[in-house]
Amino acid sequence: MDGSGAPRAVVLLSGGLDSSTVLAIAQRDGYEASALSFRYGQRHVIELDSARRIVQSLGVKNHVVVDIDLRAFGGSSLTSDIDVPKDRPDEAMRAAIPNTYVPARNTIFLSFALAYAEVQGAADIFIGVNAIDYSGYPDCRPEYIEAYERMARLATKASVEGRPLTIHAPLAKMSKADIVRAGVALGLDHALTSSCYDPAPDGRPCGHCDSCLLRARGFAEAGVEDPLLTRFAG
Amino acid sequence: MDGSGAPRAVVLLSGGLDSSTVLAIAQRDGYEASALSFRYGQRHVIELDSARRIVQSLGVKNHVVVDIDLRAFGGSSLTSDIDVPKDRPDEAMRAAIPNTYVPARNTIFLSFALAYAEVQGAADIFIGVNAIDYSGYPDCRPEYIEAYERMARLATKASVEGRPLTIHAPLAKMSKADIVRAGVALGLDHALTSSCYDPAPDGRPCGHCDSCLLRARGFAEAGVEDPLLTRFAG
Repeated sequence: MDGSGAPRAVVLLSGGLDSSTVLAIAQRDGYEASALSFRYGQRHVIELDSARRIVQSLGVKNHVVVDIDLRAFGGSSLTSDIDVPKDRPDEAMRAAIPNTYVPARNTIFLSFALAYAEVQGAADIFIGVNAIDYSGYPDCRPEYIEAYERMARLATKASVEGRPLTIHAPLAKMSKADIVRAGVALGLDHALTSSCYDPAPDGRPCGHCDSCLLRARGFAEAGVEDPLLTRFAG
Repeated sequence: MDGSGAPRAVVLLSGGLDSSTVLAIAQRDGYEASALSFRYGQRHVIELDSARRIVQSLGVKNHVVVDIDLRAFGGSSLTSDIDVPKDRPDEAMRAAIPNTYVPARNTIFLSFALAYAEVQGAADIFIGVNAIDYSGYPDCRPEYIEAYERMARLATKASVEGRPLTIHAPLAKMSKADIVRAGVALGLDHALTSSCYDPAPDGRPCGHCDSCLLRARGFAEAGVEDPLLTRFAG
């Protein structure tokens, strides 16, 4: 609790559509949110600029960017020079885990969130995983998040002392269109968010990776124009 | 599996007495062990020299040292300028979690091990936690390790594809004296290991922190002279 009396929460923020919406949701739910981002060797490191813009736009006081080197292990197109797959049809997205999967990424991110939460005296962590319109990553499934929470409740001093941790995944059962609508309702400026796995140096989305395709469909189904595309169309 | 046919395992190695013994145990059990260490802002970073000596001494082929900045969050005497407690009696060690506790440290370390294991095609992770002669850290308890394993089995591509992960904590129920004896039986050179939380620049242990006290008692109970002390007595 800070001076305002609001409970503290740690929100994992990549700067993408999903995590930015989650940050707005945590604030709506009355939390004093601290944002946590990672520089992990991702080729789309430009998303951290988006994270900073979102933090500023939503008036978040604390934002920590942690450096971790997932390149030390390799194994993903997002952290190496392997090509990001483009224009994959729906069935392909669902058929197999793509090479954009980063081994244990959410497990590592949540673990840092757990440390940050413990130091801040926060008993709540928010993560923007989604099991509807997603790329088939194992660490986005609800049963994974539940198992993580069970583990986290045994992991920390706070839990031992009777402040059990809760992991919130408010997007878990929302479609991408629902997420777009929720952001609009919360006044989130979607033009500040960045979803592309393989953007141009100026941030222009490629329009063809899984993440761009899912985003485009979400906006289309919600009947909302994506202001990010408008920004680059000018 | 590598060319030798031995199954691969990732072993968390701090360079201390416990994790060095675990590395020797993993090798005895037939694993091709890869060692994983961390530079996490610990004041006793000299333990990484011990880790390198142990790796060399045991003929381990792969050793990755990952840089992570736990100082970004603060909250522990091991990663800040808070004093490490000295000469604490047994009851004090058991009464409360000390300030040497690093928030979520084992959760973070295991998460990196999970990523490394997945990239290497290893289904086994070894960690030297111990719930008998320890400092009361929540993330050293057997129920924590079990919950971590359950989570890990949902977290990775390998688990989804039918290669469930196992987390081995072979020291969980051993006393420090048992651990010393196991090391002797496996031919581990204890003089290469480093346990102290607050060593002198040349590696000389302080002799008064929890870790030094537990180590000294372990060697005494095992009836073995600690060759590390002999090394610095000269």
